[in-house]
Amino acid sequence: MSFKAPVKDMLFAMEHLAQLDQIAQIPGFEEANLETAQAVLEECARLNEEVIAPLNWEGDKNPSWWQDGEVRTTPGFAEAFRQYAQGGWQGLQHPTDFGGQGLPKTIGAACTEILNAANLSFALCPLLTDGAIEALLTAGSDKQKRLYIPPMIEGRWTGTMNLTEPQAGSDLSLVRTRAEPQPDGTYKIFGTKIFITYGEHDMAENIVHLVLARVTGAPEGVKGISLFIVPKFLVNPDGSLGARNDVRCVSIEHKLGIKASPTCVLQYGDAGGAIGYLVGEENRGLEYMFIMMNAARYAVGLQGIALSERAYQKAVQYARDRVQSRPVDGSVAGAAPIIHHPDVRRMLLTMRALTEGCRAMATVAAAAYDAAHHHPDAEVRRQNQAFYEFMVPLVKGYSTEISHEVTSLGVQVHGGMGFVEETGAAQYYRDAKILTIYEGTTAIQANDLVGRKTVRDGGATARAVAAQIRATEAALSASGSEAARAVQARLQAAREAYEQVVDFIVAQGKANPVAAYAGSVPYLMLAGNLMAGWQMARALLAAERELAAGRDAAFMRAKIATARFYADHILTRCAGWRDSIIGGHAAVAEMPLDAY
Amino acid sequence: MSFKAPVKDMLFAMEHLAQLDQIAQIPGFEEANLETAQAVLEECARLNEEVIAPLNWEGDKNPSWWQDGEVRTTPGFAEAFRQYAQGGWQGLQHPTDFGGQGLPKTIGAACTEILNAANLSFALCPLLTDGAIEALLTAGSDKQKRLYIPPMIEGRWTGTMNLTEPQAGSDLSLVRTRAEPQPDGTYKIFGTKIFITYGEHDMAENIVHLVLARVTGAPEGVKGISLFIVPKFLVNPDGSLGARNDVRCVSIEHKLGIKASPTCVLQYGDAGGAIGYLVGEENRGLEYMFIMMNAARYAVGLQGIALSERAYQKAVQYARDRVQSRPVDGSVAGAAPIIHHPDVRRMLLTMRALTEGCRAMATVAAAAYDAAHHHPDAEVRRQNQAFYEFMVPLVKGYSTEISHEVTSLGVQVHGGMGFVEETGAAQYYRDAKILTIYEGTTAIQANDLVGRKTVRDGGATARAVAAQIRATEAALSASGSEAARAVQARLQAAREAYEQVVDFIVAQGKANPVAAYAGSVPYLMLAGNLMAGWQMARALLAAERELAAGRDAAFMRAKIATARFYADHILTRCAGWRDSIIGGHAAVAEMPLDAY
Repeated sequence: MSFKAPVKDMLFAMEHLAQLDQIAQIPGFEEANLETAQAVLEECARLNEEVIAPLNWEGDKNPSWWQDGEVRTTPGFAEAFRQYAQGGWQGLQHPTDFGGQGLPKTIGAACTEILNAANLSFALCPLLTDGAIEALLTAGSDKQKRLYIPPMIEGRWTGTMNLTEPQAGSDLSLVRTRAEPQPDGTYKIFGTKIFITYGEHDMAENIVHLVLARVTGAPEGVKGISLFIVPKFLVNPDGSLGARNDVRCVSIEHKLGIKASPTCVLQYGDAGGAIGYLVGEENRGLEYMFIMMNAARYAVGLQGIALSERAYQKAVQYARDRVQSRPVDGSVAGAAPIIHHPDVRRMLLTMRALTEGCRAMATVAAAAYDAAHHHPDAEVRRQNQAFYEFMVPLVKGYSTEISHEVTSLGVQVHGGMGFVEETGAAQYYRDAKILTIYEGTTAIQANDLVGRKTVRDGGATARAVAAQIRATEAALSASGSEAARAVQARLQAAREAYEQVVDFIVAQGKANPVAAYAGSVPYLMLAGNLMAGWQMARALLAAERELAAGRDAAFMRAKIATARFYADHILTRCAGWRDSIIGGHAAVAEMPLDAY
Repeated sequence: MSFKAPVKDMLFAMEHLAQLDQIAQIPGFEEANLETAQAVLEECARLNEEVIAPLNWEGDKNPSWWQDGEVRTTPGFAEAFRQYAQGGWQGLQHPTDFGGQGLPKTIGAACTEILNAANLSFALCPLLTDGAIEALLTAGSDKQKRLYIPPMIEGRWTGTMNLTEPQAGSDLSLVRTRAEPQPDGTYKIFGTKIFITYGEHDMAENIVHLVLARVTGAPEGVKGISLFIVPKFLVNPDGSLGARNDVRCVSIEHKLGIKASPTCVLQYGDAGGAIGYLVGEENRGLEYMFIMMNAARYAVGLQGIALSERAYQKAVQYARDRVQSRPVDGSVAGAAPIIHHPDVRRMLLTMRALTEGCRAMATVAAAAYDAAHHHPDAEVRRQNQAFYEFMVPLVKGYSTEISHEVTSLGVQVHGGMGFVEETGAAQYYRDAKILTIYEGTTAIQANDLVGRKTVRDGGATARAVAAQIRATEAALSASGSEAARAVQARLQAAREAYEQVVDFIVAQGKANPVAAYAGSVPYLMLAGNLMAGWQMARALLAAERELAAGRDAAFMRAKIATARFYADHILTRCAGWRDSIIGGHAAVAEMPLDAY
């Protein structure tokens, strides 16, 4: 079950699709060139391949374990986390002011993918800590930043996001956790939070809980929710640890997957009130949380890509080793490794094309994030911000939905052995199932795509992307190779389907919201499929150029073949979604509720 | 987690799609009318809802357990099996000569679905016993039938199928288990069999293993494999039990799902040789096994439908109970049960349409089986046999692939709760994963569809089915209702895509087998999707007639809405597969094997 980080493919995407050289021209990112990226990724690969990946199956066999309010993580996790922190990985994308490395997201995203491919359960701890850091950078006071961020970047402390309550999941307007203002400016927090990832564990000295709660007398609904820091141990002004705060882990969940990652029920205030510190202003908590959630959503998209990569590697390995039956073309006289069989190759190529397509899409989105946040030109920032925001629900929604397909194919390639847990393929399949749920289900991403990202600007951003795709189609036509021509035809058909759907969604968004939202997830799937396919088409063009220049022929030929496969086997799904969205909304509304 | 058998939908399919009244005109089936079917299904529902379904989650929590060669099943299983056997359910479809009920498959299939929906792990024991009975009916001697079949029908003994060995899974030509002829006409069996479902357990007095092995000196490959009876306890001529045979369960697997069903490694002959009795003639074992496997494959298709039904019921229940967010159309002022949200309805309708479509397809196939085996007219038998054989890989392959989609949506509807094992939705998702693997993976079904069922007769059967679908299209046009017109257009488009693919497969089958087999699974998916959609279209026509006659308006309207949904949201997938199969085979072959 060895894992090799796909460093080469990542560097290809950074260089040829995300134009890392342009990111490296942005002030502050001068050192973020391809050489840096390569050095960082290789170092990241080493730690993850050697230390963190081998703990993945171990974590599944020996999950985190609760007793009397304490959580023990899988043996080896705490030590691996120490090495992770000491390597400076927690601070990779965070500001140098607080001890981070200040690298662009374009590079950081690749490291996040590698970490998650190595060990999804493990990776969740740094991921949530990133979220907490992000929230404090966005809305924390200077004092809060100085006090809480450096220890998190050093990996001495970790962070959590406390949103969900039993009655408040997707619908945060229903949050009931209370915050009572105290004379000293602090708050006392009372309530129950569920599904808190790494809400309690033994890998760090302290845990910084970021908690959504309602200040006494605040308005009902989403406009009355505030954000609080509630540390597990109170923090003295000099940064040393004080008393244990009144927050307790009362149980952890028994889950389908990510078993090593403790999913906690946290009880606040049972012994008089947990001490909390307001972040930013009262009643603006959801706004801050959404900033952090956008980062987390993007990262969950990377988790989907990561599991897909891991499942692909494992399936290829098995398909090379397992000998069964004679190939249909008689290319081998007797029984051959199953990779010779057309359907096994179709499965492996489906896995590979989906994985590389989503990685390409995510890498390009990361570059847009970097430009949106750091480019000196305001108009460039604005355009990139719009593009990035449009891409977030696609990176999150599409990459995670495809991780179900890819990890399922991964089990399938293994046949009966795939169903035996010790083989390890089933773990990826189980782990993947959470990805379409947490940080907003696919339907929540699709609502975001329809409402905020498409209808709100009348489809302007969505159509601007279509115009860029048309430019790629023209370049494919200009290339003239057989593969480019084949991909051009598929890309055009998919892009046209997408534009028809965008027109439909914009037209129905207000007139007939049930019609628009009945097609929201199919629209997300179509758009995600197209964006990944578009990037694969750009990758094909780049690979043709590199090939012509005599560089790395084997890699470039494989990229062209994968792009062609994506076009012929994946982009071809788009028209069906278009037909369902535009012609099928009535069928969703017709069935009376009591007839289900 | 209560389960209600979908008796009404089953009776609708039998009456209006499978024309049970015509089956009841076949000599021997005179009593198999709708009243009988209803009485049988209601009795079956009672036992399964009350006794067997409640053990399903229990079996997942407390799986079967191996120690020192013995296997303990989940508490309650043995007693439930006793009740199952005493009710006569094991013999439902078997000949009255041996103590069975002799009911047609059209009715028996519905009972099999109910049992599997109640408890898939439990149901595997009767399912494998059915397979053993079928094999002995086909190829056993009169003495073997008399000795072994009645105790299996009574549920005192159970049966197994022993095919797989570590090196021989899909490729049975690699079977190495040896059979040495003895002077007394028996054989001594030596070898290791893996993945033997209920290969050892504590629910019956004896286990009748049917074992594939190679007689000393037999030819290499599939032509040298024979079939043997190897009872756990030897059977005296009077049917009483004799000595323990030399077969031992040396371990059971730790699996992703169907955990209550023991999956055994059986070791034959470690203490001098297990005594085996040849079934039929030497070297014809695979032939006999295939007859039995066709029955088992059809039954595995039913397992897919069963899990889909169970997952659907559970998801509907949760969607009615769980309150979250205000509906987009403002139909409810505050937060509403999530069944009000368009995407939840889209998910539930996808689950329902796929489930009902596959059930309709399987029911029609069962009726063809009954006619093929029992109709007095040889030409009717021949036509029905061809149709049934064409349908088996579709019922098996498509219904199980869709069970992944449906059980995954079932988890998704539950959101975060779906990922918590105690909720129960995840169990269906885990259990479903085996269905596309055992009794021949989807690729094996697809090879069968391409090779034996399409190319061999030059596409004659496949095109005859298309002609029947055209007749349904004409009937839809004649109906003239809006729903019928909408469904007609989708059905026509899907059927045309199917015909184009059939032409392609027939043309390429010999000329370019890699091209044909690269599209084998997409062809299976397209054909299965179409067959189920065709039956849903027929169901719509029947429901319109019933509605016009004033019968059961609520049920009929829901059926029409579901059929419309199937057409608009499921049949629309067919064109994409067509494009991939016809235009995408080159992309499967292009990637060099060492580039994966």
